[in-house]
Amino acid sequence: MNDRSGMNHRRIRVAQFGLGPIGLEAVRLAASRGWLEVVGGVDIDTKKVVQSLGALTGDAALNDAPVVADFEQLWQQAKPDVVLHTAGSSAAQTAEQIEPMLARGVSVASTCEQMLYPWLRAPEAADRLDAVGREHDARVVGTGVNPGFVLDLLPVCVSGVCRSVQRVYGERVVNASTRREPLQRKVGSGMEPAAFRQRFAEGKAGHAGFQESLALIAHALGWPIGAIEETCDAVVTARSIRTQYFAVEPGLTCGLHQIVRAATADGRTIELDLKMYLDAPNPHDAIHLDADPPVDLILPGGVAGDTATVAALINAIPPLLAARPGVRLMTELGVSCCAEALAGTPAATVAAT
Amino acid sequence: MNDRSGMNHRRIRVAQFGLGPIGLEAVRLAASRGWLEVVGGVDIDTKKVVQSLGALTGDAALNDAPVVADFEQLWQQAKPDVVLHTAGSSAAQTAEQIEPMLARGVSVASTCEQMLYPWLRAPEAADRLDAVGREHDARVVGTGVNPGFVLDLLPVCVSGVCRSVQRVYGERVVNASTRREPLQRKVGSGMEPAAFRQRFAEGKAGHAGFQESLALIAHALGWPIGAIEETCDAVVTARSIRTQYFAVEPGLTCGLHQIVRAATADGRTIELDLKMYLDAPNPHDAIHLDADPPVDLILPGGVAGDTATVAALINAIPPLLAARPGVRLMTELGVSCCAEALAGTPAATVAAT
Repeated sequence: MNDRSGMNHRRIRVAQFGLGPIGLEAVRLAASRGWLEVVGGVDIDTKKVVQSLGALTGDAALNDAPVVADFEQLWQQAKPDVVLHTAGSSAAQTAEQIEPMLARGVSVASTCEQMLYPWLRAPEAADRLDAVGREHDARVVGTGVNPGFVLDLLPVCVSGVCRSVQRVYGERVVNASTRREPLQRKVGSGMEPAAFRQRFAEGKAGHAGFQESLALIAHALGWPIGAIEETCDAVVTARSIRTQYFAVEPGLTCGLHQIVRAATADGRTIELDLKMYLDAPNPHDAIHLDADPPVDLILPGGVAGDTATVAALINAIPPLLAARPGVRLMTELGVSCCAEALAGTPAATVAAT
Repeated sequence: MNDRSGMNHRRIRVAQFGLGPIGLEAVRLAASRGWLEVVGGVDIDTKKVVQSLGALTGDAALNDAPVVADFEQLWQQAKPDVVLHTAGSSAAQTAEQIEPMLARGVSVASTCEQMLYPWLRAPEAADRLDAVGREHDARVVGTGVNPGFVLDLLPVCVSGVCRSVQRVYGERVVNASTRREPLQRKVGSGMEPAAFRQRFAEGKAGHAGFQESLALIAHALGWPIGAIEETCDAVVTARSIRTQYFAVEPGLTCGLHQIVRAATADGRTIELDLKMYLDAPNPHDAIHLDADPPVDLILPGGVAGDTATVAALINAIPPLLAARPGVRLMTELGVSCCAEALAGTPAATVAAT
């Protein structure tokens, strides 16, 4: 049993793999945590490699944190305990990137969407990572907000008060006008609807990790599922829409409507419904369990995306390090919570009361 | 590392301690789970001891499951892996009852409200239980719906997508008219308001485990808190109310309004607000985090009490057995989810897709 009791005695050494906007935001948040020490970064972009994390983030305290071109160099210079991985959606590609980390005994928290449930698209890579992690006392988990929380971890968590569940339904409506340019682009803003549908069919558009959300729910509930159906249609605007980044004329795509569904042999179903489009009214997240007892849950406004994704990534570190080695699922970790400070002993929390 | 891989190969042997209405409901639900084998029960009521669990529950399949007067007898006859404990609200008293179980290497899931966070009221007993559990590879957790889920585990879980939290607010409104007679009695139905207040002051009325809910949140967030304030007032009806069990005239108590609050030295606060009264309109659970990003969450109708409590108890067994030994908190376990079936391997869940 690795209880990592050292966590309260020295700071956890964390490095960042992938220095795009999300990666840099993760570095900034990590640097603000007293229990973390940011020791370096990795990016394959050689322009970034000549700079320190201080230069990339504007945080002078990180001027001594090197930026290098591959993990092995980072390992030699900085010996991280944990790597935050924010570099792509493909589990197969992520597995190649992080296997050397696990082999060094370094654990990994990743925003790679397919890593939420890597056995869906890359079962062999998942098994291999699992074996390497177990051999070297390292663990890896895929996390985030969507996938990673609202449409997977949250419904699973809520089912904990149910005697039986017949149907899991989750929906998320995002007003893309309030989001970053890459998200507005990702949902197809301004494209011809036929062109958007074609891009989805080619696997080049749409929300990544949606099937993984469904698979995680099915797995946690112990439901062996048949094929996962996934559809994605363009949302077409009837009026002109103008955002900070896009101008969309009537008849063109202003976002997407994506659905995943699966059923068990005995007729239980999971359905997740995602709408992300410009000027979407009533943004929210909602979960409905046809269950005993039934449970309805609404998050008015919905959980913000990017800023919360970085929080989820950092907050996963303490339960990840306490988990058993190998490839872990978010449902297997202790509850990930806002970790501005690390918890001490249960006795110390209430000593003054 | 105890990964209990045997869980998929043989059924987990479960016994029930406490054979009141909730305990019998737990037995019935456990008997419906293919991965559990109900092997016996314990109750100090000698009238119950002459019967089998079959006679007590009406389930003939349990006719061979003995009912005995103490755990040691049960151990000799039935060798359970896990005991479900539904016998009282006091952590100190529960600790006395379950220490012999842990000493036999038997794990315990308990609905004892104070066991949700036993270091609050019984820190020495909690430390001793923890030591006994660690010595004998057994673990214990306190769980349920309230306390155990809606006003503690759920807000902690939701904070996992936050960068920082300033205030945690939770509220629960229960229409007591829809609940069992003991709950209607517990909330003071029909009492003179002054008499109800007096009973709360004497520790004989009110919702148990409320301070523990708050302590669990504070601990998970790493917030050392000052004194927990707790108030409980009578809700007084202005009109006649008639339920299946009570008739309450104007001016008398029809329920309670209980609040717990605490703050950290740097001004962060937790406040939980519970109203349980006859004919309460708009029953619901709600969580609000003043946080970055802020999170609002509403469960219209609220999570049903008794039926869900038994579900929470049984659903906690798989993550409890996978946790490290000692006294565990619900926030430390893997996510407890509806466990009609146990999950197999992640690869098997999606093998057909």
